[in-house]
Amino acid sequence: MLGRPRRLVLLAEGAFTPLDAKTAVGVLRYRAADVAAVLDSTRAGRTAAACVGVGGAVSVVATLDAAAAAGGDSLLIGVAPQGGALPPAWRALVRDALARGWDVLSGLHVFLADDPELAAAAAAGGARIVDVRRPPAERTVGAGRASRAGAVVALTVGSDCNVGKMTASLEIVAALRAAGVRAAFVATGQTGIFIAGSGAVVDAIPSDFVAGAVENLVLEAARDAEVVVVEGQGSIHHPGYSGVTLGLMHGAAPEALILCHREGHERIRAGAAGDPVWPVPPLAELIRDNEAAAAWVRPAPVVGVALNTYGLAEPAARAACERAARETGRPATDPVRFGAAALAAALKERIQVVAPGPTRAPGARGTA
Amino acid sequence: MLGRPRRLVLLAEGAFTPLDAKTAVGVLRYRAADVAAVLDSTRAGRTAAACVGVGGAVSVVATLDAAAAAGGDSLLIGVAPQGGALPPAWRALVRDALARGWDVLSGLHVFLADDPELAAAAAAGGARIVDVRRPPAERTVGAGRASRAGAVVALTVGSDCNVGKMTASLEIVAALRAAGVRAAFVATGQTGIFIAGSGAVVDAIPSDFVAGAVENLVLEAARDAEVVVVEGQGSIHHPGYSGVTLGLMHGAAPEALILCHREGHERIRAGAAGDPVWPVPPLAELIRDNEAAAAWVRPAPVVGVALNTYGLAEPAARAACERAARETGRPATDPVRFGAAALAAALKERIQVVAPGPTRAPGARGTA
Repeated sequence: MLGRPRRLVLLAEGAFTPLDAKTAVGVLRYRAADVAAVLDSTRAGRTAAACVGVGGAVSVVATLDAAAAAGGDSLLIGVAPQGGALPPAWRALVRDALARGWDVLSGLHVFLADDPELAAAAAAGGARIVDVRRPPAERTVGAGRASRAGAVVALTVGSDCNVGKMTASLEIVAALRAAGVRAAFVATGQTGIFIAGSGAVVDAIPSDFVAGAVENLVLEAARDAEVVVVEGQGSIHHPGYSGVTLGLMHGAAPEALILCHREGHERIRAGAAGDPVWPVPPLAELIRDNEAAAAWVRPAPVVGVALNTYGLAEPAARAACERAARETGRPATDPVRFGAAALAAALKERIQVVAPGPTRAPGARGTA
Repeated sequence: MLGRPRRLVLLAEGAFTPLDAKTAVGVLRYRAADVAAVLDSTRAGRTAAACVGVGGAVSVVATLDAAAAAGGDSLLIGVAPQGGALPPAWRALVRDALARGWDVLSGLHVFLADDPELAAAAAAGGARIVDVRRPPAERTVGAGRASRAGAVVALTVGSDCNVGKMTASLEIVAALRAAGVRAAFVATGQTGIFIAGSGAVVDAIPSDFVAGAVENLVLEAARDAEVVVVEGQGSIHHPGYSGVTLGLMHGAAPEALILCHREGHERIRAGAAGDPVWPVPPLAELIRDNEAAAAWVRPAPVVGVALNTYGLAEPAARAACERAARETGRPATDPVRFGAAALAAALKERIQVVAPGPTRAPGARGTA
């Protein structure tokens, strides 16, 4: 989807902070070697690590010229602004990058390729605009085909959006590979796609094709993998996103779930002041409900808990993981701070127990 | 959405049968008074009733001229063809209708207004193309706001697609009105929209805005209604559509569910030969799972069963309803054959027991 190897320049103008530049931070955490520079004129001269804690010595620059001097050849929109549109201040930067012949990679809700001015700049510069939120042209209605993927399929599920599902998935894949397992990551959101180079932004797909799109991604990833870890989205308990979550879940037809939660997170991020408040259910309820939902297509136990302890001191973080393990009877870890080995082990174990053939999981509803 | 009162001509060329022309049949069942003619040159001269069992003496005609002579002033695409595109044979008919100044109402997957030839014909004829599958411009992320709609909100859920959710919803609304209740119907599919005149085709909406779109429709409908009945889509057990179903469910935030099932239907309609087979769960399981899913946002009991007994002889149909009632402990009826009074009564009852205020349903998760 993203094409050739690139030297990325991450556009984060005026917003290169851990909270505002989630996409840039994700790319820096997992693909720093491909990043030439970060563009934020308000922070020029610093390093990425000094601004957001990851990305090491990658430098923050003020202009496209400086980014080009650092070796950049592609511009990646590193921020997801409120409303999903291109902030007016960035338009000139995007246009100038295209005019230089740089491809522009965007996860914005508005498609940059549909903007006449930017499309003309791309044509003139011989550059490509890649809108990763654009739904795949192929429109498949899901039929639970991934239940026969021939690999162990695991899905990260969560107590809410933004609790660490993508990060947990990537850390688990890295830990599986470190343990000698052929593991693949399936990206379902823009940042995951920028990191993996392929995938589909499922929340932008017309709802009747979400499961089918995920099914196709999983079947493709399973060709070369013993374990496929699918990045989950949202939460079945989120009043706005639960449909995305369930479509993704049934499309992936996983046989194992990893529950992701941010320690201390108590209210689901939905609505505004005056709207109803949706508490995050206790871990035991999250496990029960996600296992129930998965089983409507294919039974899948929660085999571990990935706890995001960002902001906690280390002793408190360790205590939180121990508490989660006790409370759930599952291995629990913060995969970023303490590694994902325990979660990877729980999945690696399943490679042996799974028999080949059309009805792989005991009790699966799908039979030939 | 559909604008002014119309004299509809239903396009069902070569396909005016109960199975192929679902949309035309739905419109004839509930809006026959607005239908001037049906266009199917292969069945011209017959009545609608003779071809599809509903629509009475509405005549089937061979040409637009004949349809115009019958008083037609708008063309409604009455068939959902495989693939969702406009069959080439119909293009000339649509173009000619537009050239006459007739609006064209379409629920096809391809948007007719985006077709340059048809758009030009519409402009020349001063006609409008209404693509009801086009997602609403307003993009709301759901936040469970419909849980405070101030009306009794009921949702039809089902064992599969195409088991009678729209019909049950419409019959229940009619029965409620007959019982003196101010009842509103919320359409979530193309046929429902053609019948109701408004709504949203939820399966065509990008998945992160499905719940929000339904929430807006329910809040709007609740302004003037004591009971709002929302047309469900798909099934939480359908491996391809479950995400649509759950997004719709949590957007509607109902306090009561009506379970719809087609008697004798055993396998979910998903996939093709060689794909996994997904059995329809027993009624008790359907009830348990749908109640569980609803409760993630707002508890909602299944208060009745709508059984589609199409094709059964009457004694067998009555026996099936009695069996369903015994099996589930809920009132069960075929709303088309035996009326929806029992289901309407179960909802009417709730008008009294519901207290006003922000936390209307006992045990609801959303609190101010």
